[in-house]
Amino acid sequence: MVNKANAEVLSELSNEECDAYLLSESSLFVWHDRFLMLTCGTTTLVEAALYFIAEKGVSDIDFLCYQRKNEYHSQLQKTSLDEDLRRLREQLPMRAFQLGYLDSHHHYLAHYDKPYEPNPEDKTCELLMYHIEGEVADYLRSEGQSCEEIRKKLALDVILEGFELDDFVFSPCGYSINAIRGSEYATIHVTPEPHSSYVSFETNLDLGGSHFFIVKTLLEILKPRTWDSVSFNGAPAGIDEMHAGYSAACELSLDCGYQVQFCHHTDSRTNRLPVLAL
Amino acid sequence: MVNKANAEVLSELSNEECDAYLLSESSLFVWHDRFLMLTCGTTTLVEAALYFIAEKGVSDIDFLCYQRKNEYHSQLQKTSLDEDLRRLREQLPMRAFQLGYLDSHHHYLAHYDKPYEPNPEDKTCELLMYHIEGEVADYLRSEGQSCEEIRKKLALDVILEGFELDDFVFSPCGYSINAIRGSEYATIHVTPEPHSSYVSFETNLDLGGSHFFIVKTLLEILKPRTWDSVSFNGAPAGIDEMHAGYSAACELSLDCGYQVQFCHHTDSRTNRLPVLAL
Repeated sequence: MVNKANAEVLSELSNEECDAYLLSESSLFVWHDRFLMLTCGTTTLVEAALYFIAEKGVSDIDFLCYQRKNEYHSQLQKTSLDEDLRRLREQLPMRAFQLGYLDSHHHYLAHYDKPYEPNPEDKTCELLMYHIEGEVADYLRSEGQSCEEIRKKLALDVILEGFELDDFVFSPCGYSINAIRGSEYATIHVTPEPHSSYVSFETNLDLGGSHFFIVKTLLEILKPRTWDSVSFNGAPAGIDEMHAGYSAACELSLDCGYQVQFCHHTDSRTNRLPVLAL
Repeated sequence: MVNKANAEVLSELSNEECDAYLLSESSLFVWHDRFLMLTCGTTTLVEAALYFIAEKGVSDIDFLCYQRKNEYHSQLQKTSLDEDLRRLREQLPMRAFQLGYLDSHHHYLAHYDKPYEPNPEDKTCELLMYHIEGEVADYLRSEGQSCEEIRKKLALDVILEGFELDDFVFSPCGYSINAIRGSEYATIHVTPEPHSSYVSFETNLDLGGSHFFIVKTLLEILKPRTWDSVSFNGAPAGIDEMHAGYSAACELSLDCGYQVQFCHHTDSRTNRLPVLAL
């Protein structure tokens, strides 16, 4: 499945509940009854999904969700969302949605059109941070980084206390980490390049409740100019009160039992736009 | 040149100073010593530029500016900005810039790297309006529109008083108009489709001074959720005071003598994002 996505396994971490594979700037988590795969760059996630569906058979699948975010250079992607959706729909019925405006941050979400009743404890939240600034952003762009120093700068001993960690520093820059604690997971992927920096954080910890401090901490450390949150049954409340700026959101009740919220936030601390020589 | 861009001439308007061609949702204005061509959709503007350069010869060209805006579906475009730039640079030295963030509204601008001294009266301003709303937006999306009624709804007798007009209603919707008065020009192109509506206005009237009321009038009538302005030697001042919202801008002094400003405005009257079934 990883090969189909044009990714490769860099390392692996396991406990009784979960196997966590760190891929080339991507992640795969496998539990007893589900898996989660995140890829980035010009990987082909849809090929992995199609491979899984073909191998496993549609009748054994209770729930499937396929997502794509707004892209920096969509013309460089191997496929478009439309193409992915057409191919998935050849295999099984999918309902699909665009959340947000096409000319701003938006999120595509498609799910297997089959009734499903998620466990009320089953919450997922993604925090997508763009244009990071400040001391930690500078470090993430510097030469000679170490996993140890990045863990320290991201306060991972606080954010992910008690988690087993598996991380990797890419050359010339970029950082990925998988973290597991029982059935709980978290993953961070950093592409720090100036003018197109992006950091994603995803977890099944309850960021809308007991773990909201993680959102707060990451935003304080990374100082992104804009950030989005995508949540399944647990939206982080109060983000928009943390910063002067502009927030817009939409909510969606999926037939497969999840309440999804997509939020887009712009920090208005500066009204300067960049000028880049090409 | 129009054929090279994969467009066609729909109609023509002329006076002693200017020939104005209305193209398929695009425009071409030709003066004695310059021309301006705007295209949209999946036209190939770079082919027109390359054809002109080849036919005319580089040594006879004093000034050239090539622009592309952020696109709704960049993967559907025939070429990317990078490809256009590479081909233009094979013919003549071009300086190129990205104004604004790649994941929000931005503008690409490339110019012939040759000293040029524009006439101080030579001002150009583009107003790019997205997600129009309200009564006029509804009319522009309706069936059985007429040029006469659209002119009335856009208050063109006030905005373009004394101009000769040449307009066209597309099927099922869409509207284009060219307007000339001596050497002055204005052009409006409307693609009103819900969720991807876009209206562009461009003119050499002084929107930063005596004609600022045009900006005000168009924003009041079309009620766009976001809008950008791109100006050469005459930025419309005061736009950001007109609406509650968030504005960000950048300025750039081009070596070819123009002062360029790019502004992106978001109206914050609503914090609801749309959800679209796909």
